[in-house]
Amino acid sequence: MEAPPAAPPELEELRARLGELRDLRGVEQVLTWDQNTFMPPGGSETRAQQLGTVERLIHSKLVDPGLVRVLDALEPWAHELDPDSDEACLVRFTRRDQEKALRVPASLAEAMALEAARAYTDWLAAREAGDYARFRDSIARQVELRHQYAACFPEAGHPYDVLLDDFEPGATTAELRPLFAELVARLQPLVDAAARPDLEPNGGVFLGRFDVEEQRRAVVAILRHVGFEEQHWRLDATPHPFAQSPGPGDYRLTTRYSETDFSFVLYSSLHEFGHGLYDAGLPASLARTPLHDCASLGVHESQSRTWENFVGRSRPFCAWLLPRLRELLPGRFDGLDADAMFGAVNTVQRSLVRTESDETTYNLHVALRFELELALLEGTIDATGLPDAWNEGMARLVGVEVTSDAEGVLQDVHWGIGAFGYFPTYSLGNLMAAQMWRRVRADLTDLDDQIERGEFAPLTEWLRENVHRHGRKLRPRELLQRVTGEPLRVDPLLDYLTTKLAAAGFLAPGS
Amino acid sequence: MEAPPAAPPELEELRARLGELRDLRGVEQVLTWDQNTFMPPGGSETRAQQLGTVERLIHSKLVDPGLVRVLDALEPWAHELDPDSDEACLVRFTRRDQEKALRVPASLAEAMALEAARAYTDWLAAREAGDYARFRDSIARQVELRHQYAACFPEAGHPYDVLLDDFEPGATTAELRPLFAELVARLQPLVDAAARPDLEPNGGVFLGRFDVEEQRRAVVAILRHVGFEEQHWRLDATPHPFAQSPGPGDYRLTTRYSETDFSFVLYSSLHEFGHGLYDAGLPASLARTPLHDCASLGVHESQSRTWENFVGRSRPFCAWLLPRLRELLPGRFDGLDADAMFGAVNTVQRSLVRTESDETTYNLHVALRFELELALLEGTIDATGLPDAWNEGMARLVGVEVTSDAEGVLQDVHWGIGAFGYFPTYSLGNLMAAQMWRRVRADLTDLDDQIERGEFAPLTEWLRENVHRHGRKLRPRELLQRVTGEPLRVDPLLDYLTTKLAAAGFLAPGS
Repeated sequence: MEAPPAAPPELEELRARLGELRDLRGVEQVLTWDQNTFMPPGGSETRAQQLGTVERLIHSKLVDPGLVRVLDALEPWAHELDPDSDEACLVRFTRRDQEKALRVPASLAEAMALEAARAYTDWLAAREAGDYARFRDSIARQVELRHQYAACFPEAGHPYDVLLDDFEPGATTAELRPLFAELVARLQPLVDAAARPDLEPNGGVFLGRFDVEEQRRAVVAILRHVGFEEQHWRLDATPHPFAQSPGPGDYRLTTRYSETDFSFVLYSSLHEFGHGLYDAGLPASLARTPLHDCASLGVHESQSRTWENFVGRSRPFCAWLLPRLRELLPGRFDGLDADAMFGAVNTVQRSLVRTESDETTYNLHVALRFELELALLEGTIDATGLPDAWNEGMARLVGVEVTSDAEGVLQDVHWGIGAFGYFPTYSLGNLMAAQMWRRVRADLTDLDDQIERGEFAPLTEWLRENVHRHGRKLRPRELLQRVTGEPLRVDPLLDYLTTKLAAAGFLAPGS
Repeated sequence: MEAPPAAPPELEELRARLGELRDLRGVEQVLTWDQNTFMPPGGSETRAQQLGTVERLIHSKLVDPGLVRVLDALEPWAHELDPDSDEACLVRFTRRDQEKALRVPASLAEAMALEAARAYTDWLAAREAGDYARFRDSIARQVELRHQYAACFPEAGHPYDVLLDDFEPGATTAELRPLFAELVARLQPLVDAAARPDLEPNGGVFLGRFDVEEQRRAVVAILRHVGFEEQHWRLDATPHPFAQSPGPGDYRLTTRYSETDFSFVLYSSLHEFGHGLYDAGLPASLARTPLHDCASLGVHESQSRTWENFVGRSRPFCAWLLPRLRELLPGRFDGLDADAMFGAVNTVQRSLVRTESDETTYNLHVALRFELELALLEGTIDATGLPDAWNEGMARLVGVEVTSDAEGVLQDVHWGIGAFGYFPTYSLGNLMAAQMWRRVRADLTDLDDQIERGEFAPLTEWLRENVHRHGRKLRPRELLQRVTGEPLRVDPLLDYLTTKLAAAGFLAPGS
């Protein structure tokens, strides 16, 4: 094998420029983490300006003629390299980011950012008052701006593809439409068969009186077993749980505490831990480059759902967890065995709120949002018609009647922060997680016993080796193909759910 | 009166450029605040890179040829304006900042930043091991870099003036040398007369068992009376208390808790509150400009010392505080009256550690550091001789024998973060606070009664009107002159201390 051609001197300049860009992205993470955790409310105006300035700097550095020149100089060399090499990916992905940034006029980017900031205020006010009308004009203005944004990429197959690409590179409406149709068609009968309106969420096993500090101690003790360590990780409380990493060595999770239901903190922490573990598994060799990032939000979600559901709601995890919970929260889990807990945490129920829905109905909630975003963009509904369309869709897809906009069309923050095209990544994550889980189980034949013994290192190692270590070097479908040998498919998720619900006793034999 | 000449179009560009610069300074504040409070230790390498990048961006924006051009265009216009006008100050101060930045080669600035980062590691290791030798070479390298830095400003009267100017614009060695000599000569006899080695610090009135959460509740309740409000302020725990403001509306204090002595949290919080109040009093009209800042670190310290000592250790404050403490921390302050508390909190004692020293001996600690920094820079001592010089100076100036470097030459973080020339601002702050306090008392004739009634608004208003609202528009001596009608003087501090120590019963009549 021939030695690769010597790197042109511009490579060092590229790395220096990308290092700065990555540092600024990390700075953004610190600023938004702080904004969501500890910033005094009175600091919001100042913070908006700081974030605006950092975002403008990032944009100007990305489209800088110096960076164009450096990429021009490096491309011929990079074409000779193994396309999987760090350097080839670096040049390719940077050029792609730059071209996207160059297409969007600064005035439009600023208008979108400004409108998103305003939207959040409107959304909060509307949700608090349970009055959609206060948010309606913001939706209309944002949809209009998304049309302008999509028009910057006239080669896209569908305007919605342009929005999708910001969260799930390469995903298309043409791919997702049949995928969601199949998902809905196959999930609905499963929900019909398994739904238990007579039970409490999670079978009621986590209900009780829990003091916040005792919950925190318990959940940190559990997280320590799966890989959380104080040297690198934090866990704080916020109304909406999230995970964020300012950069290598610094992984921050948030969770929320209900004083009457321990399941919130338990499952949201496992979920966010999965996100954090992906960030922590990105390879040091890609640090301070744009490749030190996730492949997509869908892949990120596959990692969080792996820990929340595929591990966290499995029979062996329940068997491992139960004695620990009895020790950490004495007296609350006495009349329970592992089988009963496994059943309880897999209870299926039609419900109003996505973030509180169970694993089986969850994707029906996402299907609704995908449908509505498409309809808004295609103009088959408008901002005024959105709540009716929401309510009709909830009845048709999930089978529940919406009685208030606060628990209906206003429940999610996404449209209040300008994140149109984001929702589908949740279902993509679930599908990919199921496909990868099948491969995990084939590779780690002892997995159930490992989990029941609390040995999570082999699973972590597998995820690191097969998923995390690629960072952003592979596009999501390519990553999935390499990990599983398959394209994106619905079967594995449905098989997994059906098998589990049957094992948990929620499906009549042969149903 | 003629209307001022119309602003050239470059003014808007100046404001845009300075707004970005100010935002980045605010971002730095968030990054360092986070670093000192909640960042997982494993994030330190990432954070150092982020701070380095932001600092480089600030420097490059300050020396940008575009900013040179804008200032060139604005200067003739600015010269026609009232020199006190915001616009004239903006042009003048920006030019000054730019000229300083242009004098220092980027390579030297980077070497200083890098060496300072390394110094911190060395200092921590040396202090932990109580072994100065681990810090010695770092001191030597830093002093050498400070020589190179000073050489960038050959017009300075003394190399140390260049270091001083970064913290206290316009301060000179020629001014400070006689000032410290007089301060030492007059403080020493006062300490001789008043020192009470037989008593506990603060007369022992704050000793006891205090749970951290109960201390926190108590001190926040007290701070609320003086002006702390959750909408805009935070109070967190750190090993070294500090105050920081990321920008308008966001003021963050830290404190530290001793479980056996409530005085730490009480007085450090009042001190940091004074800093925060200065930041909160900067005028909105100067927001997002380099004038939205303190006049100097000495002036900043004058504000913190006003609340910690001039208010916090006064007889009327003790009378107001005592009943509140009895309510907030039941059972701890029963056998005490306001006079006894006033005496206790003004106890004078020779001690080893600056940050734990009382108000009267404090400036002797600073005088030692000023002397040693000068000697290092003048070459009359070197890094190897520093601990002996420290110990000799402590015996001569403070009258105590140093038994360990950890409580001696290694006690302060300043030389471990490259802050040479910073220490004198502590004494300048004390002197200015005393001079301003005299003026406060002349203007607010009812001040003692107000404080005893817990009415702090008139004092806050006075400070805002006379000090805070000028931001960085006035240089420190000019500000002092306008506020007090005087140049910097030693008398007011000495008179204040002597009067108070006499009233507290620590000076024999006529001493």
